[in-house]
Amino acid sequence: MKVFCGTANRALGEEVAAELGFPLGRVTIRRFEDGEIYARFEESVRGVDAFIIQPTCPPVNENLMELLVMVDALTRASAGRITAVMPYYGYARQDKKHSPRAPITGRLVADLLQAAGVHRVLALDLDADQIEGFFQIPVDHLRALSLFAEYLSGKDLSDAVIVAPDDGAVKPAYQLAERLHLPLAVVFKRAQPYGGGMLTQVVGEVAGRVPVLIDRIVDTPDRMCSALDAIREQGARPEAFVCATHGVLVEGTVDALCRDDVREILLTNSIPIPPEKCRDQVTVLSSAPLLARAMRNVHLNESVSTLFG
Amino acid sequence: MKVFCGTANRALGEEVAAELGFPLGRVTIRRFEDGEIYARFEESVRGVDAFIIQPTCPPVNENLMELLVMVDALTRASAGRITAVMPYYGYARQDKKHSPRAPITGRLVADLLQAAGVHRVLALDLDADQIEGFFQIPVDHLRALSLFAEYLSGKDLSDAVIVAPDDGAVKPAYQLAERLHLPLAVVFKRAQPYGGGMLTQVVGEVAGRVPVLIDRIVDTPDRMCSALDAIREQGARPEAFVCATHGVLVEGTVDALCRDDVREILLTNSIPIPPEKCRDQVTVLSSAPLLARAMRNVHLNESVSTLFG
Amino acid sequence: MKVFCGTANRALGEEVAAELGFPLGRVTIRRFEDGEIYARFEESVRGVDAFIIQPTCPPVNENLMELLVMVDALTRASAGRITAVMPYYGYARQDKKHSPRAPITGRLVADLLQAAGVHRVLALDLDADQIEGFFQIPVDHLRALSLFAEYLSGKDLSDAVIVAPDDGAVKPAYQLAERLHLPLAVVFKRAQPYGGGMLTQVVGEVAGRVPVLIDRIVDTPDRMCSALDAIREQGARPEAFVCATHGVLVEGTVDALCRDDVREILLTNSIPIPPEKCRDQVTVLSSAPLLARAMRNVHLNESVSTLFG
Amino acid sequence: MKVFCGTANRALGEEVAAELGFPLGRVTIRRFEDGEIYARFEESVRGVDAFIIQPTCPPVNENLMELLVMVDALTRASAGRITAVMPYYGYARQDKKHSPRAPITGRLVADLLQAAGVHRVLALDLDADQIEGFFQIPVDHLRALSLFAEYLSGKDLSDAVIVAPDDGAVKPAYQLAERLHLPLAVVFKRAQPYGGGMLTQVVGEVAGRVPVLIDRIVDTPDRMCSALDAIREQGARPEAFVCATHGVLVEGTVDALCRDDVREILLTNSIPIPPEKCRDQVTVLSSAPLLARAMRNVHLNESVSTLFG
Amino acid sequence: MKVFCGTANRALGEEVAAELGFPLGRVTIRRFEDGEIYARFEESVRGVDAFIIQPTCPPVNENLMELLVMVDALTRASAGRITAVMPYYGYARQDKKHSPRAPITGRLVADLLQAAGVHRVLALDLDADQIEGFFQIPVDHLRALSLFAEYLSGKDLSDAVIVAPDDGAVKPAYQLAERLHLPLAVVFKRAQPYGGGMLTQVVGEVAGRVPVLIDRIVDTPDRMCSALDAIREQGARPEAFVCATHGVLVEGTVDALCRDDVREILLTNSIPIPPEKCRDQVTVLSSAPLLARAMRNVHLNESVSTLFG
Amino acid sequence: MKVFCGTANRALGEEVAAELGFPLGRVTIRRFEDGEIYARFEESVRGVDAFIIQPTCPPVNENLMELLVMVDALTRASAGRITAVMPYYGYARQDKKHSPRAPITGRLVADLLQAAGVHRVLALDLDADQIEGFFQIPVDHLRALSLFAEYLSGKDLSDAVIVAPDDGAVKPAYQLAERLHLPLAVVFKRAQPYGGGMLTQVVGEVAGRVPVLIDRIVDTPDRMCSALDAIREQGARPEAFVCATHGVLVEGTVDALCRDDVREILLTNSIPIPPEKCRDQVTVLSSAPLLARAMRNVHLNESVSTLFG
Repeated sequence: MKVFCGTANRALGEEVAAELGFPLGRVTIRRFEDGEIYARFEESVRGVDAFIIQPTCPPVNENLMELLVMVDALTRASAGRITAVMPYYGYARQDKKHSPRAPITGRLVADLLQAAGVHRVLALDLDADQIEGFFQIPVDHLRALSLFAEYLSGKDLSDAVIVAPDDGAVKPAYQLAERLHLPLAVVFKRAQPYGGGMLTQVVGEVAGRVPVLIDRIVDTPDRMCSALDAIREQGARPEAFVCATHGVLVEGTVDALCRDDVREILLTNSIPIPPEKCRDQVTVLSSAPLLARAMRNVHLNESVSTLFG
Repeated sequence: MKVFCGTANRALGEEVAAELGFPLGRVTIRRFEDGEIYARFEESVRGVDAFIIQPTCPPVNENLMELLVMVDALTRASAGRITAVMPYYGYARQDKKHSPRAPITGRLVADLLQAAGVHRVLALDLDADQIEGFFQIPVDHLRALSLFAEYLSGKDLSDAVIVAPDDGAVKPAYQLAERLHLPLAVVFKRAQPYGGGMLTQVVGEVAGRVPVLIDRIVDTPDRMCSALDAIREQGARPEAFVCATHGVLVEGTVDALCRDDVREILLTNSIPIPPEKCRDQVTVLSSAPLLARAMRNVHLNESVSTLFG
Repeated sequence: MKVFCGTANRALGEEVAAELGFPLGRVTIRRFEDGEIYARFEESVRGVDAFIIQPTCPPVNENLMELLVMVDALTRASAGRITAVMPYYGYARQDKKHSPRAPITGRLVADLLQAAGVHRVLALDLDADQIEGFFQIPVDHLRALSLFAEYLSGKDLSDAVIVAPDDGAVKPAYQLAERLHLPLAVVFKRAQPYGGGMLTQVVGEVAGRVPVLIDRIVDTPDRMCSALDAIREQGARPEAFVCATHGVLVEGTVDALCRDDVREILLTNSIPIPPEKCRDQVTVLSSAPLLARAMRNVHLNESVSTLFG
Repeated sequence: MKVFCGTANRALGEEVAAELGFPLGRVTIRRFEDGEIYARFEESVRGVDAFIIQPTCPPVNENLMELLVMVDALTRASAGRITAVMPYYGYARQDKKHSPRAPITGRLVADLLQAAGVHRVLALDLDADQIEGFFQIPVDHLRALSLFAEYLSGKDLSDAVIVAPDDGAVKPAYQLAERLHLPLAVVFKRAQPYGGGMLTQVVGEVAGRVPVLIDRIVDTPDRMCSALDAIREQGARPEAFVCATHGVLVEGTVDALCRDDVREILLTNSIPIPPEKCRDQVTVLSSAPLLARAMRNVHLNESVSTLFG
Repeated sequence: MKVFCGTANRALGEEVAAELGFPLGRVTIRRFEDGEIYARFEESVRGVDAFIIQPTCPPVNENLMELLVMVDALTRASAGRITAVMPYYGYARQDKKHSPRAPITGRLVADLLQAAGVHRVLALDLDADQIEGFFQIPVDHLRALSLFAEYLSGKDLSDAVIVAPDDGAVKPAYQLAERLHLPLAVVFKRAQPYGGGMLTQVVGEVAGRVPVLIDRIVDTPDRMCSALDAIREQGARPEAFVCATHGVLVEGTVDALCRDDVREILLTNSIPIPPEKCRDQVTVLSSAPLLARAMRNVHLNESVSTLFG
Repeated sequence: MKVFCGTANRALGEEVAAELGFPLGRVTIRRFEDGEIYARFEESVRGVDAFIIQPTCPPVNENLMELLVMVDALTRASAGRITAVMPYYGYARQDKKHSPRAPITGRLVADLLQAAGVHRVLALDLDADQIEGFFQIPVDHLRALSLFAEYLSGKDLSDAVIVAPDDGAVKPAYQLAERLHLPLAVVFKRAQPYGGGMLTQVVGEVAGRVPVLIDRIVDTPDRMCSALDAIREQGARPEAFVCATHGVLVEGTVDALCRDDVREILLTNSIPIPPEKCRDQVTVLSSAPLLARAMRNVHLNESVSTLFG
């Protein structure tokens, strides 16, 4: 078993290696002056159970191509088995044709990975479970739920309510509510027919409660902020926790989320959070222990599902 | 262009052929005494643009295998292009792993069709749009929405409301509402945490209105009936229309749906509705014109999406 | 090594497991109300050398699909190697085009199994050896000959003759004759040209001898019965043994075979023989020890061919 | 439509082209001094419906590789469709494992042709019909039966009998008998158990009749000669016709077949018969018209099966 | 036939369309805020012979991914045939393993294109001819030679010499010399063994002659400049023409090439040359007519090789 | 680990086995009278790490087909991993299209090997490094350089110069020079434009030195002899060493190379050198130790690249 790391999230790779108790495998990755990627493994990988840690976060195309190039080199160097550890799977939201003559890029990425020679994928909180079905190879699909549950259980949440900021987030919200024995609320938002504006509706009781919003991805602030507005109107307390597994965080998002009525923003390190985005309100939970345990079990052919409930 | 029909829905095939203005191609399909399927095409298919109409409705495995056998025979007989016309796609709900070590049979079926030699699929109201991404071949995905819209526009619906009986049905309900310029309501139903029973909630105004419930599939009556109960409690008028593209209708379902507060049950003929289920309240709309137009356009390389907007 | 069993022949699976000395792996297989199959493995199969025992006997399409669904679930659950143990291979007789524009379903089934993810097949007395060539994966092809030879060697056969009821059965008959040091006779039956009726001819001496008829499959009684008639006319003793590996036995077959001139009907349990067909004259030999030894050797990478002559 | 010809049977290629009414396409095929094959097409094949006539007769490996090299060149030169016209399919008798750890080379050849880029195969009298099932691409399987039937119908055969020299030849013998309204006889030959020598048996009446022996391949003289001996003993007239589609004719075979009791040896030109083997008794029937008609129909997408029923 | 254009070289696409006499097909390409690419074709492509013009020049990974996404959308929208027109093929120099455990990215890119659904590739001056062999699909490989030959033939070159700046450039230099009836010189440069510095040697007569240097790619100025130095020392006239098909031109390259002894730098527009690099000395020759003629011939199934010598 | 050997170079196989310390695996290979190849493995190969030693030297097509047949048999007999050890890779020089509508047979051979089931290739001094990129499977590419270096280091080469007889041989010549700390010379030979004859030019100092010429293949004597002539003219000493990894040696080549000015011809046994070609001047170096070490390391998953520098 050897673990390699691309350049997308080197810090996470180091942490995972530390958890596993051995150093990252040596690989040289560089870009030629014209931007072409080059990778060379500096130690034998012959017959090895190789893992590459590489979330395909922005810059998504660079990170994806880097992963593919590394996989090609491993294949040609006779690696025994190649697992792409993708804590963030770019293009996951392109999982269906949003209009005629559009691509399904989430499937395309699956095909590219398999064409390059990947034998299995280890993913974290995919945007849609159907993405597993885009692959012919096994996908181990981990959930960050336990990270948030554990962290939050150290807080006083006697009066809290778990809030799904959108109907697409009902599933993780429901699971967190169950785990923490807390009630659930959902914010629905839909365009009204014939240009009637947006209809926002809060289902469930939030008045006087500490809201804990949870979603899989935060890229722009819109969804979270309008949910915060809606529950605020319904009387929720201005001490919200905002949780999301993947902090894509395009320009301006952190600023917008650091509102007065938000007490803490919880993210994981599936995507590197640069220092300038690590405001006081932001807490980054590490997915490294989770990934490391899963990788070890994959290597030892022990159950992954039983580990993480 | 030749159109063939398996045994799953012969009546639909005949209707489609009538729409197209030429007879169904001749094919002999029989079962040996041990249940093995045999198919033989009785006219040359060499270089032909061949369509096989075969919904994989119950008995799903028989109908699927029959389709695969026909495709194999067409391939070996040098058909030019083979389109599987599947007005109902069995196993569509098995589109993700519902638990660890479960199959994704919706994807498996896609693989089987492609292994047998299918070049394209023409489907109607798939249960999840991601199923298109399970295929590497093109999928033309038709919508039955216009059938319902057209039929209902002949009724007096001045006071009606479109109702999604479940959050999984929000999408077709929303589209129908938009098409008919009617308001929308949604019935949410979720298990409460820690065995707290089911929470049913109606979002949107239904009191005093004629409810039009719409979903993609009706197999058992549970979902529709509990939605009917819920809106009834909220004061909806007892003259509901219940619409579903695919009438899988397991034993007892029609009985349960023919309630006093249901005025009409609208289904399409994607799946054959046997006479004993064709009660007075049941209206079967034909998908044949829709399928025929799509097939003709596929054959002529004309746009399918523009036709059915 | 873990052994799982579909629903096609659960009793055989239990027997094989008993021979191997460990219990069958736990798997839940059920059918939804609409007939769709669902399978979930209840224990980890990660990296396991997995065997699925599933003859594709009638209902052939149900059993085949069940096998494919189980294979898909195993693949996605990261099984190390998947062997389909198919004591009976349905559609084996569809091994060539019987007429223009017909399928070669025996090949199609091979493609479907490989598309689903099967790595090897363990078969028993395939109807044509060429079926091995339909696969790209290895096929271990076992012979039930030793079962019949062993059982019959406990009988007084000093005066017996091995009879091939048809020219298609010459090969197993010849092998049994060689094994038991008995003479051979063959019944030929062919349609005469220009509607001249059937020509039945017995080659070899049968007068005054105990006939032992052997074939691979008995589905309808016709072939065996007309062979019995033919040798009876030639003076064979009315104490025939009728042997067949696979008792497909469509309605009425057992009745027809239980003639006065038949002393015993020998079948294997490759296909479950329901109680009502287990007449006094019927003896079912278990293929479980043979299958178990082959499976163990496959698992241990020991020779299968040397084991079974 | 363009027709090219390898070096295996250039004369046949020329004849086919003459039948079709246009010249063979220009292709340069040569061998370097070290034996490597080189092929270059001397005219554009872009989008063309290309046929390559190349029986894989001895030297089988040279002819097969030449065919594969030509196919590769056609593929890379953007041919629209590539049909391998193989009047003789080498390795057809390797259609099953004759012993453990043996190859199934008939299937291997199918895989090689498909790997090189062949889209369809046109074959003549394959040794086993199952070979069609070794391909995923369409195989048009022609029969030389009509050639023999036509030629023989010009002879006085009022007193003749069609003889299958072996049980493997029953099928073509039966079909010829039916076509010519003649009776049928079969020579069976099997090793007796326990070293008891060969058992040869003639089924059917041959005494006083002109025998017409027919088989698919004649490579060594053994089978035909021992059949001739056997029917001679049964009183057949010493004026036999010996027919075989494929005259592989290893060293000494023609000598051995030119016996006093053989009147005429009928072969087709699927394999080139060199002048020194064209004895007075040998008649070579041309398969060119048959092949040409089939190729034209393939090109025009007209039925092939109806033509040659 | 429809021609689409990615964002890599829109100007070239427009020029090609103008040559062909019809407008570019409409396609919307955009990047989401997180950098993910989205493409949607705005007109029907069903059955169309589609061409996508997209050199994979820097930013190479962005341009490659954009091409793959467009191909996926075309495939799913039922395009009849998809040709990737890649005037510049990124990663072409990664055509072998430069050290152990390195990738062969030139082959990987070929696999990715084929996995996405490309049917053929149209390339211009690939860095190694073997790259054609990395594809299973046809590659039409155009040469820019005629562009340079034509342009230069308008100059007074009575006293010129064609110079290969490196042994890797001998082939295009030789061909240009032959075309223009000019002598040839080659600059060799090799590292001396044991750290002996570089050995630069000019083979052929350059003294007093106008040098015309030609290569396939200019990315950094080193190779050209040291060749210019070497021939200058040998007495070449300070009026050099410097030709290269692909102007990758990393930062500082144009500056370095615009020397006093260089009269003109000839590039093609395979890669867009930004205005700030278009110095007075730089002439950009359009490859659009060449590409347009090749595309038309590909579409019409006319020979491409005959067109361009 | 079991090592098998085809008939192409049985002596080499025996030597490799001796190096490895265990006998060659038993396999029967024969040719039927019609030239078809048959192979049967005489010992179990189930799960075995199998190596087949078979250079595809002349007769190249026979040797290639024999290799493919052996691979098919191994695959069907459940070998665990199959490595084709090809000390000489026939068709390596067909690595690009030498003219329009020509094949790329070097790639075709790669496809055929993979279609038959080869998992990895072990090659020696391929004619072009790009051939590795023709495979999707790993290729271990050994170099014979050390054999020549070791042998020559036992000679007095104080005054020698390494000579590349052609620009295609610069790479091995350069590496040998570096290894032996000797100077380098290159003989360039190019056709002059417009029929101006051949231009031969020697770059580097050869006068008074012992020349050591090195190339990968010697098939015809032309290249070596004209290089010898050229350096002779420049004053090289008439005591040349001529080295080549692969002695293809077509008729007359050895005669032509055994010139007075050649002291010794060094070849490896990658291709069997028949006794009549083993003149006194010819020394055959064994590649067996090199191959054996590589095979052992491949089997043990130890680095191959580090072993051989």
